Amino acid sequence: MTELHLSKRVEGMYNPATRDIMKLLEKPEIISFAGGFPSADGFPVTEIKLLAGDILSHIEAETLQYSPTKGYRALIKFLAGWLQKGKNIHTAEDEIQITSGSQQGLDLACKLFLDEGDQLAVENPTYLSAFQIFNSYQVSYLPIPCDERGMQVDLLETALATHKPKIVYTVATFQNPTGISLNAERREKLLYLADKHDFLIIEDNPYGELRYDGEELPTLKSLDKSGRVIYLGSFSKTIAPGLRVGYLVARPEIADKITIAKQAVDVHTSNLSQQIIYEFCRHGYLEPHLNKICREYRKKRDTMLNALSAYFPAEVKWTHPEGGLFIWAQLPANIDSTELLQKAVSRGVAFVPGNSFFVGNSGYNAMRLNFSNTSPELIDKGINVIGQLIKEMINETILSA
Amino acid sequence: MTELHLSKRVEGMYNPATRDIMKLLEKPEIISFAGGFPSADGFPVTEIKLLAGDILSHIEAETLQYSPTKGYRALIKFLAGWLQKGKNIHTAEDEIQITSGSQQGLDLACKLFLDEGDQLAVENPTYLSAFQIFNSYQVSYLPIPCDERGMQVDLLETALATHKPKIVYTVATFQNPTGISLNAERREKLLYLADKHDFLIIEDNPYGELRYDGEELPTLKSLDKSGRVIYLGSFSKTIAPGLRVGYLVARPEIADKITIAKQAVDVHTSNLSQQIIYEFCRHGYLEPHLNKICREYRKKRDTMLNALSAYFPAEVKWTHPEGGLFIWAQLPANIDSTELLQKAVSRGVAFVPGNSFFVGNSGYNAMRLNFSNTSPELIDKGINVIGQLIKEMINETILSA
Repeated sequence: MTELHLSKRVEGMYNPATRDIMKLLEKPEIISFAGGFPSADGFPVTEIKLLAGDILSHIEAETLQYSPTKGYRALIKFLAGWLQKGKNIHTAEDEIQITSGSQQGLDLACKLFLDEGDQLAVENPTYLSAFQIFNSYQVSYLPIPCDERGMQVDLLETALATHKPKIVYTVATFQNPTGISLNAERREKLLYLADKHDFLIIEDNPYGELRYDGEELPTLKSLDKSGRVIYLGSFSKTIAPGLRVGYLVARPEIADKITIAKQAVDVHTSNLSQQIIYEFCRHGYLEPHLNKICREYRKKRDTMLNALSAYFPAEVKWTHPEGGLFIWAQLPANIDSTELLQKAVSRGVAFVPGNSFFVGNSGYNAMRLNFSNTSPELIDKGINVIGQLIKEMINETILSA
Repeated sequence: MTELHLSKRVEGMYNPATRDIMKLLEKPEIISFAGGFPSADGFPVTEIKLLAGDILSHIEAETLQYSPTKGYRALIKFLAGWLQKGKNIHTAEDEIQITSGSQQGLDLACKLFLDEGDQLAVENPTYLSAFQIFNSYQVSYLPIPCDERGMQVDLLETALATHKPKIVYTVATFQNPTGISLNAERREKLLYLADKHDFLIIEDNPYGELRYDGEELPTLKSLDKSGRVIYLGSFSKTIAPGLRVGYLVARPEIADKITIAKQAVDVHTSNLSQQIIYEFCRHGYLEPHLNKICREYRKKRDTMLNALSAYFPAEVKWTHPEGGLFIWAQLPANIDSTELLQKAVSRGVAFVPGNSFFVGNSGYNAMRLNFSNTSPELIDKGINVIGQLIKEMINETILSA
């Protein structure tokens, strides 16, 4: 067996951190705050059984044939209305492309614009799995630090004096991994900079519909006057990830080229998946379902915030997100969260160490905690375990000092 | 609105020929030999309706949740058995990756191995939509001419003296666009060359199960002793393309990296699509269904061959494929098939001009004729129209000479 001569892009695509985390999740007995999965308890199994039964018992040859790459027309129509009503995004049908999950939308947008060495500005920290995509296009990162109001757009502005990013990637609302949202003022400023410095914005918004309190923020896309925002939406966090249906919204000349790029990679998204999502929406299930899961997730978030207050020592700080799936905790500078993870796993609890989310060497004393996929009882138990371990580690540090 | 600064790879991804053909197909009144679609009449609508109950009873929260990137374990297990029994491919489950159609398998294999400028050897002519993928990786083509026994492997051997392809891409069985199969001797020779010159082979085999007569040929994968073949299979031509389920078979270290690459682009293939394909196979529907569609396609192929004999002038030559979906016709040197297409479309018939399938300027007097997606009556009618037009064009050429 000879050596494999892999392409240069592969090296960056291999992310051992993600793989190791996925392996941790496979242990059924572990209390895992590591994943980014929505809660399986909240899935609309009953509704989907009803709808799938209806679709399958009336299935026609058309559903089984190849279909247009752009997507199922009825679903696109629904989305145009939904985005207008719920997000103030006024979009025509030729601006919407159905994707096989919003992950695919991100990949296609990068494929369309990013050559090797092109600059891509990202929030630092940012979405872990996006690195796999960005690295596969061999981009050059321009990491922008975040604070409690999201990406520090003033630091981006300073960087723009000497840097020329083609794209700024942002999970502006309930960010993964921090749970924080970019505030309204910075959103306006980011769009202003995009016009001034001629870059595009990819607004990745899988969590925007999972708001538990606070006031709605305008999406960047709804503020976008000059067609600079490529908006990524998903049904994975709101209906079901297993069906793999997301969507991309961009001005027609971009959307059209995204369609061409998608045609090459998978021709179109599963017709049956698209139809089920559409029927779910058409029957008016989406809004009540969102209300239901937001109630559940709010409860879990609150449980986690309470547990953090109860069990974590005063030296630890954490975010108080108004929505989404994640809380971000900042440990004292000398506590290594990877070391903490090893201890935690041996006591049956997992999370993701912070450094995985950073460009460059940072975040070694931070951690991402997912609250959506664990019961309130186990959230309390698991945070207690981690809190004890942090206290022990702080004590050890003091003793050894 | 400012100019789009697209990546360099985009230029080659835009294939106006494919788009124009797709547009022709949208006219419902046209007799189209242009597509590569399987016949919608042959889709197992009844069987899938029968399976509906079974499928629904299996819809659980798990079906709606994220699932492993590798694919639905039961389907992978089935495939391992099916490939061993039907194709003499002895494969372990860790060598199989489920893909969102075999198109995705091709894209991922290229992503894994091909850097800009890397050499890729292809049959000339080759599969039209593969160009979109290959171009997106900015490859350098090494086109290998074909004859009635497939790729001229001796010409590849000669080229290898001065060229160093990383991959040889072949639709070895019932090739798209010619319908021709690589003969057994050349298959052995190709594998020998792969070992000697250290290249990989991508064996794209969507049509292999659609044999209407002649003897089964061994797949390259079944002859592969050194793990050099990446095999792409599909359920699109055998069950239903609309579900988007295919698979890739490669030695474990390649399959494992394909999984990583797929994780980045769409996380996993629709669970429901995978389950439907699996239930179809598990119930033993696949083999009788293949027998049924092969009977239908054989009839259509024979109708087209008879019509070609009846209506095409003696100056035209065409292939006599033993399976697959396509016949390839070679017109006299001075007949331009793009000009012929324009005339044909105005008389309600479409096909794909030959030059679309070639690297370089070739095939201007050739055409691809798909017989799977048109009724025998319309095949006869459409071939008659094209035959008349060819005769007219030949006469005009003689008169103007």
